[in-house]
This record gives sequence, C-alpha cells and structure tokens, in this order.
Amino acid sequence: MTTISREIHLASRPDGMPVATNFELASVELPAPGAGELLVRNLWMSVDPYMRGRMIDRKSYIPPFQIGKVLEGHAVGKVVSSNNPDFATGDLVLSMNGWREAYICDGKGLQKLETFGLPEQAFLGVAGMPGLTAYAGLLRIGEPKEGETVFVSGAAGAVGSLVCQIAKIKGCRVIGSVGSKEKGEWLKSLGVDEIIVYKDHADQQSLMTALKAAAPKGVDVYFENVGGDHLVAALEAMNVFGRIIVCGLISSYNDTKPKPGPWNLFNIIGKRLRVQGVLVADHQDMLGDFVRDLSSWVPAGKVQWQETVENGIENAPTAFLKLFSGGNTGKMLVKLD
Amino acid sequence: MTTISREIHLASRPDGMPVATNFELASVELPAPGAGELLVRNLWMSVDPYMRGRMIDRKSYIPPFQIGKVLEGHAVGKVVSSNNPDFATGDLVLSMNGWREAYICDGKGLQKLETFGLPEQAFLGVAGMPGLTAYAGLLRIGEPKEGETVFVSGAAGAVGSLVCQIAKIKGCRVIGSVGSKEKGEWLKSLGVDEIIVYKDHADQQSLMTALKAAAPKGVDVYFENVGGDHLVAALEAMNVFGRIIVCGLISSYNDTKPKPGPWNLFNIIGKRLRVQGVLVADHQDMLGDFVRDLSSWVPAGKVQWQETVENGIENAPTAFLKLFSGGNTGKMLVKLD
Repeated sequence: MTTISREIHLASRPDGMPVATNFELASVELPAPGAGELLVRNLWMSVDPYMRGRMIDRKSYIPPFQIGKVLEGHAVGKVVSSNNPDFATGDLVLSMNGWREAYICDGKGLQKLETFGLPEQAFLGVAGMPGLTAYAGLLRIGEPKEGETVFVSGAAGAVGSLVCQIAKIKGCRVIGSVGSKEKGEWLKSLGVDEIIVYKDHADQQSLMTALKAAAPKGVDVYFENVGGDHLVAALEAMNVFGRIIVCGLISSYNDTKPKPGPWNLFNIIGKRLRVQGVLVADHQDMLGDFVRDLSSWVPAGKVQWQETVENGIENAPTAFLKLFSGGNTGKMLVKLD
Repeated sequence: MTTISREIHLASRPDGMPVATNFELASVELPAPGAGELLVRNLWMSVDPYMRGRMIDRKSYIPPFQIGKVLEGHAVGKVVSSNNPDFATGDLVLSMNGWREAYICDGKGLQKLETFGLPEQAFLGVAGMPGLTAYAGLLRIGEPKEGETVFVSGAAGAVGSLVCQIAKIKGCRVIGSVGSKEKGEWLKSLGVDEIIVYKDHADQQSLMTALKAAAPKGVDVYFENVGGDHLVAALEAMNVFGRIIVCGLISSYNDTKPKPGPWNLFNIIGKRLRVQGVLVADHQDMLGDFVRDLSSWVPAGKVQWQETVENGIENAPTAFLKLFSGGNTGKMLVKLD
C-alpha cells in the first residue's frame, strides 16, 4: 500500500521578497513503512520568519534549504501506522520534517507529544520553539526586573506576544510595537501598557518620538524582532545598563542589498548596553522551567495566544509571505486535512 | 603672591574634525591659596579620544564641556603650596582638573599619587584610566579563554596596546589592527601574533579578507576602539558565542552627519554574539586586582607601553588632533614645564 504525500519544495532561491515561483508543490509516493519505520500524517505545519534565512545559500547556524528539496520546519503529526516499538498508531509527534503532508521515518528526531490539555498546535507556538525563545530570551538574556520598562517589537507575533505577557507577569511596564490598531487592541486586552502602531510612524524621527513618549522613564529591556528604525529608536530610548535581546530582524530579511545598520551605536558605550543574540537551541536546559511556568500561567489566564491559520499544504507559501506583510496575529500555522 | 596659569578653553564646538579655532589659550591669575586650599602645578596632561564626545552639547554619561571654560581631563601635578593638612608641598596628585598649568583647589577630587616606581605620567596611561579600561573591558566583559583569538582595533593606542598584552598573558592568539607598519612592528615585538595595517585596506571587503586570513579559526573576542569597517569585518569573522567589547568608535567621532552602522548585525543572532559597552567608571571595584596584576606584569617585562609627548600647554590642541590621524603610538600626553 502506498500513500500520496504532497510537499512544498524550494524551487529557486528568492531574490528579495519571496514569490510564488520560489516554491513548488510536489507529490511523492510513500511506500508502506519498513521494519522499524513508521508513517506519520502531519496535522499542523509551522511557518516561521527564520525560514527566510535558510533560503539563502550561506553558512549559518543551520544549513540552507536545498533547491528541489522539501522545506524543513516544525510540524505536528499523528502516527498512521508503525513498525517501531517506540511509537503506536494514534501517537502525536513533533518533528522538524517540514512542509509535507506525510512522511516515513525511523523515529529518530521525532518527539512524542503530551499535550497537557493544550491544543496540539500550541506546541508549534506558545508551548513550542517560539514560546521557549520568548521565555529564554526575555528572562535569561533580558533579565527584566520588577518596575522596569520592556519594549517589544513585532509584539503581536508568536514570540513577541509571549514576551509581552511574561514581562507583565514579572511586573514590568510593557510597550509593544505592532503593525495595526487591531493587533494593538489585542495586546492591550492582555495588559500591555502602551502600544505603538509603527505603520503610523513613517520616518525614524517619528518612531523615536513615539517611543520616548511611551517610555518617559526610558527603556531597560528591548526585545528586538524587527530591526531597522526600531533598533535606532530603541538605542536612543535605552537607559544606562539596558539590555537588547536580538531575536529577529525581520525588516531586513528580504533586502536584496544589505541595508545599513543604526547610526547611533555609540549609545552602546555611553549607556553601557548589552546587546545579545538569542537562539532557542542554546536554551533547551530551560525547557523544564518553561513548561512548569506555562502550565501555571495558562490556566490562570495570564498567558493567552492567537493563531493565524491557512488551510491546505498548497497555501503554505501564502502563509509564509504573510509573515512579511504583517498578515499574522500570533502564530502562523498551516492546517492539513 | 599670584601665579599665572595658562589654560586651554573650548572656544567653539567643533563641526566635524576639530580645528585650531575651537580652542583658546587663556591666561588666568591665581591668588595665593586660602584656608584649606592648595596650589598645584600640573606636570602632565592627558589627551583622550573620549574628550571629543564632551565637545558636543548633548546629554551623555558625562556633562559636555562648556564654551569659554577649561577642557577638563586627567592631569598629574605637584603641590606647590598647601594650607590643607591632607596635602604637603611636593606631593604628586592626580586630578580631573584638565588642561591648565596650575590650579587652586580645596583637595576634593584630588588623589595623592603613589608611583610604586613607575613614571608619574604612567598614571594617565597604562596605570591609569586607559589601563583599567583595557583590563576591565577585556577580562570582565570579553572573558577571554586560553587558546581563543582576540582581535583589537586601535591596537597601538593607550588602551589597545594593553589589551593586546593582557590577552597574550591570558594565552590568547592576538590580532591587532593599526594605522602604520611601525606601530605594527612595536606590537609584534610585544608578542602580538598578527598585524593588520588597516590603511592598506581601503575598502571593507579587503579588510574583511585580511581579518579572515589573520584569524583562520575566527575571532572569539573583539575589542572595539574604532568602529566603521572594523566592526563590519569583526561581525563577519566572529565565532559563535563571541564577545564584542565596545570601548570606542573613534572613526565616527568627527562625523558631521552620522554614518550608517554595519549592514551585518544579523550575525548577532546567528552567532549569538554579546556586544557590550565598557566605561571605566563602572569597574572601579577591579582597581585593586588591576594594580596587583600590573605590579607583577611590569617588572616581569610582560607589559610595556609607549608615550607620544607634546610639550607645552599651547600644544594640547595639536596633541588632541593627532589622536584622529593616528599621530600617537601608545598614550598621548602633554608635558608641562
């Protein structure tokens, strides 16, 4: 018995903003699983900004995607049939096997999912890689103290919205920058103190003025998801001994020519700032603490999340492109039938 | 009895590279010291890059210089007469009273100098503020480990040359960027492993190539005194978990319009870099360790230094300008008669 699985391959490397022809929908025939193997049907696929970086052919912390090969990424699936004693039919599994409807594997790299009452797709978002990124980045690198001011860009995204809520839990004043009034209203409903709708501030000076108005006592911790003018404004608004967690620079991911960086890096000296990158892979040791905290915060209503869902694997490229135009609130997902 | 003291005042704020007319040589008449006061005659005045920042009228970690007032900075002087029981005629004193031949004061802010056999002017350089800056910046912020590669820009300066030597003492491979072959030869004689004469590398790409050739295993710690292309090249050459100590950005101090920053800040994420500013004032708690280490390193020949000396207070502006054209090797000083 064979299974047909549709997959999204990288057809060509994007030059600037990705376009439809960079992606190819392919069909592959999967054989029945062999000895020790299992067949998994994906239920949810994760769509993440960092995947843009893997479309570039360069050495980085993770190898680039290959032309003609499937786009790898997190997915949650269900075991359909198994010849592997570690997995039973019906098990939910988390993999990095990416944008495909189904796959055969030997179980290596698969993680059996216990959902603890959460929806399974939460393990691609708030309870998954973006969640731990927010938790480790803010708490370990940002070290926010009660009463401090935390500024978050991309604040309505999967990572940003959790950063905002953890910062509130830690007793901070939180300022979130978002792309629309609606996103801002959602964050306000979560307790975020001040919202900047950055699209209302076309030039750098206007964004700087808005941030200084929102943070009259200055910014102690900046959680950076965006870059560009946001970083310039943050450098101006930071307090002495401020911390900048660099998680993403999405404003530059589709640049065809590299954009110049901020002109005001001298603030790093005068204010003795610490600017540090975060990648979730370095912070797996915090997973236990993260799960423990999240499992108390969620039932207490202290952490909420949103999802933006596209249906069908053929819409995964569309979902991906929406990341760069602000088309998602919270976690961007593709739901498979 | 009165004393005539000549002083350098800020005549006007520089726009771009400072020029002679930004400075004014003034003569003031000092009365005899009153009750509790003392008269100090300066022997050596310190000339430091950070003073350029104080010529700009802006809020910073230290107030700006005022037009028509003396340029403040470190100086070593000798007590000429004293009505203050804490100071005796002939005492050597370190002050922040700046570019003047002599001054009257009540002793507040003065530090009596014990030279431990070092030349008195060393306390403006290797044993003073630049020395502690190098020590604290490299060891506390850079955290170099034996066998790691340390890259230093402005490597023949007062701070940079000590950073190079401490890094060698700690068992690191050291690459120094300097402005001339002669400076490089001096550093080589101190044990620095590789020299980049940056003036031979007019464009960014060439500097990047030179750094990668000098650091085939990548850079673990970058001690930043310069900025601009040096920072771009370092970001490219850094290893995962690298540390960048931002001590100075002298290449931009005379910009009339702010220059854009590095286009490759994304390396901060992929390599999980830590970029952190250093100001000596935050690290006074390390002074004891610093003095202890230096007093063993100097007699053992492990730390050497150079001075570039201009004579006479009227030449202080010239000395200052030389900082921006590479006219100093090691500590820039003005010697008074």
